[in-house]
Amino acid sequence: MTQIVEPGADTAGTAPGKAQGWLDDLESALRERDVARAAELFATESYWRDLVSFTWNITTMEGRDQVADMLTARLEATDPSGFALSEPEDEADGVTTAWFTFETGVGRGRGLVRLVDEDGPRAWTFLTTMYELKGHEEPQRDRRPKGAEHGANKHRRTWLESRQESVESLGSTSQPYVLVVGGGQGGIALGARLRQLGVPSLVIDKHPRPGDQWRSRYKSLCLHDPVWYDHLPYLKFPDNWPVFAPKDKIADWLESYTRVMEVPYWSSTRAVSASYSPEQGEWTVEVEREGKPLTLRPKQLVLATGMSGKPNVPDLPGMDVFKGDQHHSSAHPGPDAYAGKRCVVIGSNNSAFDICGALWENDADVTMVQRSSTHIVRSDSLMDIGLGDLYSERALAAGVTTEKADLVFASLPYRIMHEFQIPLYQQMAERDKDFYDRLERSGFEHDWGEDGSGLFMKYLRRGSGYYIDVGAADLVANGDVTLVKGQVDHLTEHSVVLADGTELEADLVVYATGYGSMNGWAADLISQEVADRVGKVWGLGSDTAKDPGPWEGEQRNMWKPTRQEGLWFHGGNLHQSRHYSLYLALQLKARHEGIPTDVYGLAEVHHLC
Amino acid sequence: MTQIVEPGADTAGTAPGKAQGWLDDLESALRERDVARAAELFATESYWRDLVSFTWNITTMEGRDQVADMLTARLEATDPSGFALSEPEDEADGVTTAWFTFETGVGRGRGLVRLVDEDGPRAWTFLTTMYELKGHEEPQRDRRPKGAEHGANKHRRTWLESRQESVESLGSTSQPYVLVVGGGQGGIALGARLRQLGVPSLVIDKHPRPGDQWRSRYKSLCLHDPVWYDHLPYLKFPDNWPVFAPKDKIADWLESYTRVMEVPYWSSTRAVSASYSPEQGEWTVEVEREGKPLTLRPKQLVLATGMSGKPNVPDLPGMDVFKGDQHHSSAHPGPDAYAGKRCVVIGSNNSAFDICGALWENDADVTMVQRSSTHIVRSDSLMDIGLGDLYSERALAAGVTTEKADLVFASLPYRIMHEFQIPLYQQMAERDKDFYDRLERSGFEHDWGEDGSGLFMKYLRRGSGYYIDVGAADLVANGDVTLVKGQVDHLTEHSVVLADGTELEADLVVYATGYGSMNGWAADLISQEVADRVGKVWGLGSDTAKDPGPWEGEQRNMWKPTRQEGLWFHGGNLHQSRHYSLYLALQLKARHEGIPTDVYGLAEVHHLC
Repeated sequence: MTQIVEPGADTAGTAPGKAQGWLDDLESALRERDVARAAELFATESYWRDLVSFTWNITTMEGRDQVADMLTARLEATDPSGFALSEPEDEADGVTTAWFTFETGVGRGRGLVRLVDEDGPRAWTFLTTMYELKGHEEPQRDRRPKGAEHGANKHRRTWLESRQESVESLGSTSQPYVLVVGGGQGGIALGARLRQLGVPSLVIDKHPRPGDQWRSRYKSLCLHDPVWYDHLPYLKFPDNWPVFAPKDKIADWLESYTRVMEVPYWSSTRAVSASYSPEQGEWTVEVEREGKPLTLRPKQLVLATGMSGKPNVPDLPGMDVFKGDQHHSSAHPGPDAYAGKRCVVIGSNNSAFDICGALWENDADVTMVQRSSTHIVRSDSLMDIGLGDLYSERALAAGVTTEKADLVFASLPYRIMHEFQIPLYQQMAERDKDFYDRLERSGFEHDWGEDGSGLFMKYLRRGSGYYIDVGAADLVANGDVTLVKGQVDHLTEHSVVLADGTELEADLVVYATGYGSMNGWAADLISQEVADRVGKVWGLGSDTAKDPGPWEGEQRNMWKPTRQEGLWFHGGNLHQSRHYSLYLALQLKARHEGIPTDVYGLAEVHHLC
Repeated sequence: MTQIVEPGADTAGTAPGKAQGWLDDLESALRERDVARAAELFATESYWRDLVSFTWNITTMEGRDQVADMLTARLEATDPSGFALSEPEDEADGVTTAWFTFETGVGRGRGLVRLVDEDGPRAWTFLTTMYELKGHEEPQRDRRPKGAEHGANKHRRTWLESRQESVESLGSTSQPYVLVVGGGQGGIALGARLRQLGVPSLVIDKHPRPGDQWRSRYKSLCLHDPVWYDHLPYLKFPDNWPVFAPKDKIADWLESYTRVMEVPYWSSTRAVSASYSPEQGEWTVEVEREGKPLTLRPKQLVLATGMSGKPNVPDLPGMDVFKGDQHHSSAHPGPDAYAGKRCVVIGSNNSAFDICGALWENDADVTMVQRSSTHIVRSDSLMDIGLGDLYSERALAAGVTTEKADLVFASLPYRIMHEFQIPLYQQMAERDKDFYDRLERSGFEHDWGEDGSGLFMKYLRRGSGYYIDVGAADLVANGDVTLVKGQVDHLTEHSVVLADGTELEADLVVYATGYGSMNGWAADLISQEVADRVGKVWGLGSDTAKDPGPWEGEQRNMWKPTRQEGLWFHGGNLHQSRHYSLYLALQLKARHEGIPTDVYGLAEVHHLC
């Protein structure tokens, strides 16, 4: 994932004092409010990424002018100080890398700087992140609660009584400040953080139990990301946790986690509609809890309904006459009912391959319809080459904890991230050359992303277009799963007909056709007007397929203020749910406490969906 | 807990090579099977404590003769080698302390040695522990399971299907090798370890859900031991966990833990009877699962029913005519029903104080009947002075993890442990002088243990006789709870009458009268004959109250082979459940694998209960 040398135990070859010297210069310039001098400390090509510590936003300043612009707007209010190395700096290939801590008027932060020599040390990349608000530190470690209330106290309430009371009062005698719609890993992680921060919150989800978001998926599903990448906040998976957790195991974990972390969580609860009153600064959210209507009035509304949560079901002629089973991949139950049946899976990304593989294993007759090119990487190679430096036993042994890895990853500017990625995928292409040769011979259309930057960039840009191969690609390569290419034209009673006239007889059609932008949830729940005001969610503006420009610099609308007051989007994979839930929680906590949160660089809206 | 200097980061003042030199000498003597030379490496006063690595027992050799005796019996079969320091040694007050690793023919171990100068370095204390069996390493970290089974495989089973099948087959088509009766923290921790080791096991418990052992206790109950002391194996409490967990919170944790660690666990299952066939080397255990009878045939039977699990209910004249409520402390529901009622609590240890406090808080009229002297320490002082060096945020900051603390504690020989404890309790007496003065003025009979060694020694010797004060002692000291001293003679319809004729009117009588020896469980479940063969469980033979001599050197019958083949006792507080479950699990695993486990030093039975 990164070729940049990590700070490590090996301090040989360091240039003592270079990074601290630079930090001292920065601090001096900032203290004197000398924006020009501060900007001069950045290299000609430079990137300052800030996660809510300076900007109350998630934003990247590219180059000195943008640095100067941000500081002009935010320096006085931010009042930063105390920049100090938190471990020895590291130097390699002309780049000095250093971890540091700092504070602002209201919070404490940590960061990572990479210095290059450009007439003296200048910042090439500079990451600043807030990790806590002063006076609102989380009750952890030596601040942990006592639990037992010592002394004698008439009519004390036990932990259980307090818990029951707070669960019962929510929504009737008290209102959540934050309502999180969607209780998958994203909603749960955010709910845990908000509870730790003492923000009155509620997570609601339509399923009967936390984890059902996973339990209800096709039965062969396992996580495609490895355990080190998947930890939730506060409570890590134990050391015996599988590398790729099966869906029901991760579901059980989420359910246990919700209870252990005391996340206020209503199951079997649907959000029906929501509207915002700018006068009152409050949402009115109609929900159905176990079938009973109820009105909630949160100040902040977080949609954590999944960036892969809103199915894209195609509208094809003949779907109404087709006599077999048909469903979107998200509703596919697994292969048990389909032994000996003719199954057509439309699509060629992760879900399509997983479903084809499981159907074939259960003796179905399986056809995959590839509509467009797909990027495939083998799981082992991706783990080793793509993630191993940051998220692996190897990384842990080298001192790269999950938290540290998250910050390293966060420190790589989106603008140049693909440059670090391309060589990794070149390595994978070489290592797995035989595999790709076989795949090509089968006629499968394969790509490495438009610029060869591979899977992570596709994920960040469009959230689709790839398969992490855990075995099913070989079924296509060797013809066990029949590969057909083309667009679907229509369905008949018993078949799928492609644009070129090919007719595929089918007892089952699975639409593995992906998901829509998350602002579609806002359209459903709030209004099309609000969905349009907020605009497209996800993507970087990379001007590649499904991620139109202009360049945004950050993922659109994720974990940061949107153009609709009080509306937030949260989600992504487990890594993002863990890491970004912190910054979203801090933004919400600051608002709950009335701490000024003037947002710098609120993004423009360029696309409606 | 210990005044012995811990090995730490500060290596100034070390004598490099002393410990490794001693280990080299030991290894050379052992390699040459020179028992006399090996024994000479021990000081005149010396203690070698072994946890299953040399002796397949938990035993302490005291002095050179016992060391020589053990080595004569066990050296050849153990075949130890590879003694090497695992971190730099530490020297203070004439004692060199060093952590080391080693291996035996069948396993790998770690240990802690303290050397004194006695005509050259000699071992004063020497701890050897096994942590894994070769070829049976636990699937953790870089050995963790993959989870997803990559490749294409007709009729693969998902994780959920395998789990369901293994749960359903147990007791019908397959038999557990180990049956653990009792699913509190002890049974659960052991069940988790056995599952990790791949030993077919089953934990059964009479309650409907794991954790109910705690849920069903009086509602004000919180753990008296702090979080750092209470971790279960594999999965630590998160950093926000309360210092003293409320009972319902620890119950929820145990329930989640059982599921997450995939402990094979049958709730609502009672063990009705058990008998052992020496010919078949097998138990026949009749159980009732959700009311239905079922026969299990394990090779090994572990009683984990609680060293504080078998209520001692006194047999008093008049209990049959008393018209109010009466129950043992373990069945006390809490104070809710007793506001304004006259409550008599018989006993003056932990449960008695907790219950008196909660009743008083709920406006009951409370009398405590003290029958014998009690040792009280204030929680804050105990945490700081008694546990702080090993189990606290302070200890963690100094590098003393819970695992390391467990071994440090295990390395202190029971024979001299009280000598380390006495000064700590002298400190507590001084710090809390005002408190003890007030308590004495109230007439409360207080002691520090027969030799002034305080709470931990009382716990290890008799498991009773103390209260960790979290506030209720003041209620007795200031008269809010009425203190009466004496023995109960009988009950009438409405009162408790003491031997001196004092009559206490009562609507409620709580018998906070403690618990019996765990071999009472064996008498109930198996037979009095087997209970007598095994003898008393718990205690050291310290020749103090409720712990009669002769000296045993270890806790009787706990976590090690007993005089009944295939019968084991497991339990204790969370610390012991965590730490000793490892050694019990390794003993069971070795037997399951057919690894020779000749037991050295099987203890004699001196007391029947």
